[in-house]
Amino acid sequence: MQEITIRTQQHCQFINIDAQVQSAVDAARIQNGICCIFVPHTTAGITINENADPDVVRDIIATLDKLVPWHGNYAHTEGNSAAHVKASMLGFCQTVLVREGKLALGTWQSIYFCEFDGPRTRKIWITVIPAP
Amino acid sequence: MQEITIRTQQHCQFINIDAQVQSAVDAARIQNGICCIFVPHTTAGITINENADPDVVRDIIATLDKLVPWHGNYAHTEGNSAAHVKASMLGFCQTVLVREGKLALGTWQSIYFCEFDGPRTRKIWITVIPAP
Amino acid sequence: MQEITIRTQQHCQFINIDAQVQSAVDAARIQNGICCIFVPHTTAGITINENADPDVVRDIIATLDKLVPWHGNYAHTEGNSAAHVKASMLGFCQTVLVREGKLALGTWQSIYFCEFDGPRTRKIWITVIPAP
Repeated sequence: MQEITIRTQQHCQFINIDAQVQSAVDAARIQNGICCIFVPHTTAGITINENADPDVVRDIIATLDKLVPWHGNYAHTEGNSAAHVKASMLGFCQTVLVREGKLALGTWQSIYFCEFDGPRTRKIWITVIPAP
Repeated sequence: MQEITIRTQQHCQFINIDAQVQSAVDAARIQNGICCIFVPHTTAGITINENADPDVVRDIIATLDKLVPWHGNYAHTEGNSAAHVKASMLGFCQTVLVREGKLALGTWQSIYFCEFDGPRTRKIWITVIPAP
Repeated sequence: MQEITIRTQQHCQFINIDAQVQSAVDAARIQNGICCIFVPHTTAGITINENADPDVVRDIIATLDKLVPWHGNYAHTEGNSAAHVKASMLGFCQTVLVREGKLALGTWQSIYFCEFDGPRTRKIWITVIPAP
């Protein structure tokens, strides 16, 4: 298991982590298999989406904010229930296939760490499993 | 593949299954790898979230209920379409990394079986894959 | 890694891909393990849900459309931000367990490719990993 540390700068922010995840695949020295990327937090998640136009990520963040508003009738007194909900909606683990030593992503895809209650220092854990 | 059986008591209920999943990891006798936990139903899902304040889970359940109300303009005559939608939103498989024989979860994380149309008797299937 | 090509016919459409995924498992010739199914696009996703009453899939599509309307106050000028959001909500990778050479799905479960901005020609990538 490998660990990446990132520092988020905004309250809600998606950060492209393709390069760090590829480094973990490189370190595992496998040709083909899967790469499991896990976020060990409860107010941040992980997703994949478009890397060409940054407005796509802005629209995803804004749409989630509209669906799950920060200020609402929540019971959790810490006040960040919206972040917990959004993290569960996107999920905490992303599996990406590995082909010839490289993350097999679509043309427009990148992997995004999804901060929903930043800024914070966050960890990402990665395990790479070879295919036969 | 290992199977866990659980009995849910409420219509919507998140049940912490960390102990049962760890038992499956113990039985697999691996040190490092991944644990894939799969829910073979269509009106229940699986997620990870906070285990400290039970209000977090309550807020997640209430927010999903608000987004996808039980009574709505649904076509499915069985009347439980909201449960199907919520299960797809959270997902049916959760992959957790395994480190030194233990589920690698963050400090505040637990794994939750998510009942959306209970009470029912439910199954959970688990397969553990070692890393090299 | 194996590749499936499918052609979607509608703007929003869920397509049952159980048979194609089982063929990939057959080709991998494993008895037990996991099958990782990855969608290399950013406006289409993957989920599991009921295969008996087609109204369930219709209700899921309609509910997602209501939550994330096609016409909205989006910044992305291509005009398909709703598809990007819905794909991230359902996710891009589905892991299914394999038992005795067969996809281990629940009685009512099927695997659905989820088109949110069709019709288009789409790819699906599959890697099968054996359990010890």
